[in-house]
Amino acid sequence: MSLSISALHTDKYQLTMMYAHYKNGTHQNRRAFDLYFRKLPFGNGYVVFAGLERVVQYLEGLRFQEEDIRFLEREMAFEPEFLDLLRSFRFTGTLHAMPEGTLAFPGEPLIRVEGNIMELQLIETALLNFVGYQSLIATKAARVRHVAGQDTLLEFGTRRAQEKDAAVWGTRAAYIGGFDATSNTYASQRFGIPSSGTHAHAWVQDFPTELEAFRAYAAAFPEATTLLVDTYDTLKSGVPHAIKVGLELKQQGNKLAGIRLDSGDLAYLSKQARIMLDEAGLTDTKITASSDLDEFTILNLKSQGAKIDAWGVGTKLITAFDQPALGAVYKMVARLEDGEWAPTIKISSNPAKITTPCRKNVYRIIDRKSGKARGDLITAVEETIDESKPLHLFDPEHPFRRKKVKHYQAMPLLQPIFQNGKRVYQLPPLSEIRKHHQQQLSLFWEEYLRILNPEVYPVSLSRQLWDTKQQLLNRIYDSIKAEE
Amino acid sequence: MSLSISALHTDKYQLTMMYAHYKNGTHQNRRAFDLYFRKLPFGNGYVVFAGLERVVQYLEGLRFQEEDIRFLEREMAFEPEFLDLLRSFRFTGTLHAMPEGTLAFPGEPLIRVEGNIMELQLIETALLNFVGYQSLIATKAARVRHVAGQDTLLEFGTRRAQEKDAAVWGTRAAYIGGFDATSNTYASQRFGIPSSGTHAHAWVQDFPTELEAFRAYAAAFPEATTLLVDTYDTLKSGVPHAIKVGLELKQQGNKLAGIRLDSGDLAYLSKQARIMLDEAGLTDTKITASSDLDEFTILNLKSQGAKIDAWGVGTKLITAFDQPALGAVYKMVARLEDGEWAPTIKISSNPAKITTPCRKNVYRIIDRKSGKARGDLITAVEETIDESKPLHLFDPEHPFRRKKVKHYQAMPLLQPIFQNGKRVYQLPPLSEIRKHHQQQLSLFWEEYLRILNPEVYPVSLSRQLWDTKQQLLNRIYDSIKAEE
Repeated sequence: MSLSISALHTDKYQLTMMYAHYKNGTHQNRRAFDLYFRKLPFGNGYVVFAGLERVVQYLEGLRFQEEDIRFLEREMAFEPEFLDLLRSFRFTGTLHAMPEGTLAFPGEPLIRVEGNIMELQLIETALLNFVGYQSLIATKAARVRHVAGQDTLLEFGTRRAQEKDAAVWGTRAAYIGGFDATSNTYASQRFGIPSSGTHAHAWVQDFPTELEAFRAYAAAFPEATTLLVDTYDTLKSGVPHAIKVGLELKQQGNKLAGIRLDSGDLAYLSKQARIMLDEAGLTDTKITASSDLDEFTILNLKSQGAKIDAWGVGTKLITAFDQPALGAVYKMVARLEDGEWAPTIKISSNPAKITTPCRKNVYRIIDRKSGKARGDLITAVEETIDESKPLHLFDPEHPFRRKKVKHYQAMPLLQPIFQNGKRVYQLPPLSEIRKHHQQQLSLFWEEYLRILNPEVYPVSLSRQLWDTKQQLLNRIYDSIKAEE
Repeated sequence: MSLSISALHTDKYQLTMMYAHYKNGTHQNRRAFDLYFRKLPFGNGYVVFAGLERVVQYLEGLRFQEEDIRFLEREMAFEPEFLDLLRSFRFTGTLHAMPEGTLAFPGEPLIRVEGNIMELQLIETALLNFVGYQSLIATKAARVRHVAGQDTLLEFGTRRAQEKDAAVWGTRAAYIGGFDATSNTYASQRFGIPSSGTHAHAWVQDFPTELEAFRAYAAAFPEATTLLVDTYDTLKSGVPHAIKVGLELKQQGNKLAGIRLDSGDLAYLSKQARIMLDEAGLTDTKITASSDLDEFTILNLKSQGAKIDAWGVGTKLITAFDQPALGAVYKMVARLEDGEWAPTIKISSNPAKITTPCRKNVYRIIDRKSGKARGDLITAVEETIDESKPLHLFDPEHPFRRKKVKHYQAMPLLQPIFQNGKRVYQLPPLSEIRKHHQQQLSLFWEEYLRILNPEVYPVSLSRQLWDTKQQLLNRIYDSIKAEE
C-alpha cells in the first residue's frame, strides 16, 4: 500500500506564489502560519482535532518527482533555476500541533508552522484537506459516542464515503472519536482498528429460504454468527428463524452472537425481538441496528427504550452529513525581519475573519481542585505563565467579560512535531490517541459536551496578544484612510 | 503516482459472505447485480453518471497481496484453501455500464454486472463508493453549469474536500459536469484538466503595500496576471491598485488578465469594479468571483446584474454540501440456475426499496422529429425493440399513467465494458466524455433540466419486467403468509 502523496496535491496558486516569490527574490523569507477553524460544526461545543498522522506522513514524503517537474515546466513555463529548487525541495519547517484527539475551539491554532514562504504556501492546501476532514469526522463520532453511552458503535460508511481516502481516514477519525470497530477491512488492516461485519440481504436472497440461508451462514461462522433478520419480515420470519438457528448453535456448544435490524421501526422491533430472544433463552444474543442512524436518531431510539446493544452508523457519520466541511483556514501570523518575528494581520469587512497576529501557544487552564478546565488561554510564544500568580481571562470579542483564576494548572496544548524539517515527535499508537481523547473529555464539565446547545467554552487572548491585534488593526485602517 | 486500490477496500461482510459461500460450496454460482440509485439528489431532475474510469481501474488491478492474505488468515481464521482462492483471485465478470456523462434516472441500472457470487460481493463496496461520489459531484457541477450559462466555471474545492481522493476524483467529475478548469494541480496533471490559480491574501499581506504586492506578482506573470483585490478594501484600495498595475502592464504591451473578488457584496462590488476597469480602458480585464458560491448564489448574483465573468466554486461543489451522499445501492437481480437466468427480488416494508428483478437494458426513447427524449424504457436483456412498431410506456408505480409512442429511436444506454473479465471498452478521453454529456443534455427538454422543481422524467418498465416483478412479489408474500 503506497503512502506517498503527490506534491501537486495543492492549489495552483500556491505554485504561482512560490514562483512569484522566487522571481521577487523573497522565496527564502521566513514566515509563520496558523491553521485553525472559526466556527464549531454541528452546533457542537468543541472539535476533536485529528489528521496529524496524515500531515506528518505527507510532510516527510514531500518531493517533486521528475514527472511533476516536467509537468510544471510545460504548463507554467517556470524557469529552469526554479525547477531545480523544486527538484531539491524538502520540508524544512518547524511545526507545532495539538496531539490528535485533543479538544479544540474556534481561533486556536491546531497547527502552527514556521518555515520559508515557499514551503509554507505549498503545504497549505493539503494540510487543510487532511485536518479539516478528519477533525470533522472525529467530532461527529464524538457526538454519536456522547449519546450512545457504553453501547458498541460500528462505523459502516465506506460505500457512502466521498471516495476511497475518506472511507479510510474517516474510519480512523471515527475510531479516535469513540467508535469501537469498522466494516472497512483496509482501515482495519492499516490501522489495527477492530473490524465488524456479518452478511447482507443478498446472502439471504441467494437461498431458497431464509432458514437455509441462516443455517449456512452459521455453519461457516459457528463462533461468531450475527444474522440479518429483516430481509422478508423481521418479527414473523427473521427473528423466529434466527432463534431456531440460535438454539441449534446452542446444542452444538456455540451461541448466536447477534441479530441485526436494518429497516423498519427500530424501537418497536428491537423491543419485540429482545422479548422473543429472551423467551427462547438466547439472553446473550446482542441486537445490532443500522439504518441511516446519527446522534439524533440514536438518542430518540434510546429514549423510547429500544433494546439495541450496538449501533452501525454509516452515511451520516462518514460524510458528516449535516455539515460536510469544517471550513478550516491557514493564515500568516508573523514574518521574520532582521532576526525578529514581526506580527502580521489580515483584515476583513467581516470582523470574525480578522486574524490574530503573532506566533502563539495555547494553554488549557485546569482548576487544581475540580480537575476541570476553566477556559483556554492563547498567548504569544514568548510569554510565560507563572502558575503561582492569578490569571486574568477575558472574552476577546467582549473584553468586559472577564474573570480572575487562581489555583490552576496551565496545560500547553501545542507540541513540537518538526524542528527545521526533522521530526521530533513520535506518532502515538491509535490506542493511545483514543485514550488521550477520553482524558481530554474528562477535563470538561458536561455543559460543554452536550450535543444540543452546549455552553460556550471560554477562550481568552493574553493581554499582549489583544493589544498587538488592536495596534495592527488601527495602523492598517489609518493607512487606508490616509490613501483615500 | 500509484493507481492500485487495495482489495481490502471493502466491507468485512463481503469477505465473510465470500467465505460462507465457499464453505457452503456455492461460491462459483453465477449471479447478476444492478447498481442504481433510488432518489434524485438536490431536487434535481437527473443524475450525471460518473466514476466508470475509476471502476475499470479498480477491477483491472484487483488482486489480494500476500500481506492481505496474511491479514485475513490472522484476523478471520479463513481456511488455507480459501486463502488460495483469494491468491489467484481475478475479476472475471461481465459488466455493462452507461458511458460517463450520461444522464440517468432513479431505478435505472448504471452498472449491470454478472459473475460468480464471490467477486460480485467483493466489489460492491468499492463500486458504490466510486460511482456514488463521482456521480453526485458531476450532477452538482451540471446544476452550477446550468445557471452559469457561458460563464467560466473554476473548481476551487481541494482544501475543503473530504480527503485527497475526493479532491482528485471530484475535480474530474466537476469537469465532466461542465466546469472549465480546476485549482487542483494534481488533477490537472493526471487528467489533463486546465488549471487555474492566481494568488492568495497571504501574498498581499507579505508586502509593505498592496501596490508593491501587485507589481511583484505582475512581474512574475506579465502575460497572465489576475490580482486578488479584497485584502484591505476592494473599491478603495484593491481595484485602484489593480488598475494602476493594469495600466503599467499595458504600457509594456501586456494586459491585466483579471481581478478576483473573494468577499463582500459580490453584486455591488463587481458592478463598481467593472465601471472602474472600463473607465480606465481595461475593458478586457475579466472579473472572477469566489466566496462560498453554489448554483443558488450564482443564480441570484446574475439576476442582480453582477458583472462576473468567471466563478470559483469550492466547498459547496466538492462536498455536495446540501446532500453529501447519493445513496446508490447494488442489488441482486438474477441467478443462473441450470443454465437459465432466474429473476430474484428483494422485498421491503418500504415499497420504494423493493427491487426490480431480471438482467436489464435501458433505452432512451428519442422522438425522431424533435430529437428529444420522450422517456426511458427498462427491459429484460432478452427483449428486443422493433422501432417500426409503437411502444407502450407506462409509469411502473401508477400503471394507469401510460402513453403510446411512435416514430422513435430506442437508444441503448448500457455498453459492454468487461466480457468474462476482459475489458472490451476503450476508456474515452475526458474531452469526449464532456462532449457526450453535452449531447445528452441536448436530448432533454428544458423542463427536465431546470434546477428547481423540474418535471419528472418518465421511466417505464417493459410489460414483461413489470409482470415478472408482480409474480415474484406475490409468490414471496404468499410464502410468508403460509408460514404464519
